[in-house]
Amino acid sequence: MVILAIPGSLRRRSFNRMLLEAAVECAPEGMNIAIAGLEGIPVFSEDLEAAGEPEAVVVLRGRVERAEGLLIATPEYNQSIPGGLKNAIDWLSRREEVLARKPVCIVGATAGRWGTRLAQAALRQVLAATGSLVMPGPALYLRDGVNLFVSGRLADEPARDALRTVLSAFAAWIP
Amino acid sequence: MVILAIPGSLRRRSFNRMLLEAAVECAPEGMNIAIAGLEGIPVFSEDLEAAGEPEAVVVLRGRVERAEGLLIATPEYNQSIPGGLKNAIDWLSRREEVLARKPVCIVGATAGRWGTRLAQAALRQVLAATGSLVMPGPALYLRDGVNLFVSGRLADEPARDALRTVLSAFAAWIP
Amino acid sequence: MVILAIPGSLRRRSFNRMLLEAAVECAPEGMNIAIAGLEGIPVFSEDLEAAGEPEAVVVLRGRVERAEGLLIATPEYNQSIPGGLKNAIDWLSRREEVLARKPVCIVGATAGRWGTRLAQAALRQVLAATGSLVMPGPALYLRDGVNLFVSGRLADEPARDALRTVLSAFAAWIP
Amino acid sequence: MVILAIPGSLRRRSFNRMLLEAAVECAPEGMNIAIAGLEGIPVFSEDLEAAGEPEAVVVLRGRVERAEGLLIATPEYNQSIPGGLKNAIDWLSRREEVLARKPVCIVGATAGRWGTRLAQAALRQVLAATGSLVMPGPALYLRDGVNLFVSGRLADEPARDALRTVLSAFAAWIP
Repeated sequence: MVILAIPGSLRRRSFNRMLLEAAVECAPEGMNIAIAGLEGIPVFSEDLEAAGEPEAVVVLRGRVERAEGLLIATPEYNQSIPGGLKNAIDWLSRREEVLARKPVCIVGATAGRWGTRLAQAALRQVLAATGSLVMPGPALYLRDGVNLFVSGRLADEPARDALRTVLSAFAAWIP
Repeated sequence: MVILAIPGSLRRRSFNRMLLEAAVECAPEGMNIAIAGLEGIPVFSEDLEAAGEPEAVVVLRGRVERAEGLLIATPEYNQSIPGGLKNAIDWLSRREEVLARKPVCIVGATAGRWGTRLAQAALRQVLAATGSLVMPGPALYLRDGVNLFVSGRLADEPARDALRTVLSAFAAWIP
Repeated sequence: MVILAIPGSLRRRSFNRMLLEAAVECAPEGMNIAIAGLEGIPVFSEDLEAAGEPEAVVVLRGRVERAEGLLIATPEYNQSIPGGLKNAIDWLSRREEVLARKPVCIVGATAGRWGTRLAQAALRQVLAATGSLVMPGPALYLRDGVNLFVSGRLADEPARDALRTVLSAFAAWIP
Repeated sequence: MVILAIPGSLRRRSFNRMLLEAAVECAPEGMNIAIAGLEGIPVFSEDLEAAGEPEAVVVLRGRVERAEGLLIATPEYNQSIPGGLKNAIDWLSRREEVLARKPVCIVGATAGRWGTRLAQAALRQVLAATGSLVMPGPALYLRDGVNLFVSGRLADEPARDALRTVLSAFAAWIP
């Protein structure tokens, strides 16, 4: 079972990328998680699209299509998901509907106190529009990231256990 | 009174840009509306930001700061605002808080049947996070755009009247 | 297959109740739809709950538990679902988690122009919290109800066809 | 300056009622806060309304009308506001528009970990529909209530200070 993991932040060493790196390690047997960044995806415009879909979009679309599920780790920017993550979804939703009926698991980590709950809810709304099969639970809201991530790694054991629980549930969620 | 108008779509001839062009014509006396596109604003990343704020962001930030109010015209992509619009707000919210206490009027047009209600609600949530003063009403939801916009211009008279009403209310909304 | 249909409005002759009455007629073979009103369910309070769950809640809980899926038809009040519908969900979510893993299909009708899109999105968010399996699509947004409902009946044939499509998809959605 | 304070929970000793009791004590000079419960307000229905507005609604409507601002303290039920609070707003929004242009300050407390952020965002969306003037910030999200409320009273000094800050900002927010 191949899962494509997408960090909502472009920052090289973001907590959400580290969370996905931990997911690679914590995946249940039989689940293979690969990480795909959003690097190189330009801001969407129909004019740009008319000139041909950018290479980074074509590549991401292909990886999404081949994956049996998506694992999205999102930070919260201004009570919603990052514009860059929404932008990637906007591109993906334009053709061939690769997101329709695609199983998705949403998680999130933040340096702040509030655990990306508003971002995750906003992402659910967007993925309802794309017809994706978003797992309703269990949820993973990691906050106070500086206490959880040490030396570039999710070091907190309860958080890793919670991540394992989420990933096992996701394995069962995929039809 | 100088108002900065921002189209949520990057498309050169988008309905929302045409809506703002109509706003320039329909503005009440004393309200001067200038349009600022989102062209050239890259997808946000802290790494990029650390290397210095991109020129297009610096320019937009300055224009927002000098304006007495913002008029945002948004399409609806996947039941929310376009990633590109959210991305611009993410950039603007990073420093000096130019969006805090800034009066904002939200309008929207779509080719579809549903009038950008979900996008406008999503935008309100984001602008609550930035501490902006979003006018609670009257609202403008333009749908079935092909019937309203003719030859690149908002031609529908009831729609233009509704736009005039919104802009007059916005003039009164600005403290 | 037994489906419990819940109208979001308490009005005896509401469009959403009529929509569910049409659903009874339009259900695919093998799907048996029964309508359960929200009559008699008081406003939730922990104090009231501590004195024993009200009879109307006990009855509704039992019916939800026995149903293989829920069909909820909601109007839109103030850009969200009616307080009465949210209140019923609040009661149901308190014990035994009858809503968890329950397949749900959301539809909605309105006398107004905007088709309950904000209400349906708000309901999705609530049902994500309860861990329900909300069908991501197809959606049914009926607007301008006075043109669709005639003499207390959904008379519009395209609307009835769309309802049939939704119900068939729901039959396939239920695991 | 008379402010009407409404707890979103009907529970007699709810954290949000205690939060409002603390607000009475922490109000800046010149701000007089009175608490109005939602007791006795039945679930809305047009049929009920047609028979005459219930007495509890009439009373609440009058108090809202006479107040110069509203202070709403909401818990979070199922990632949104309680059905009972939404129901009261539904009633109030039906006639004379007492909520339009009414300044509102939203706060919230919870026994849980997540501080009512989703509930407050949902309430903002509803109050945008009613045309109310919701203060964009500062926000107050109180979590882990058992540590903040002792013997029926908001005992935590940092929380009381934050409450004072919010109330002073609200005094300035009211036109």
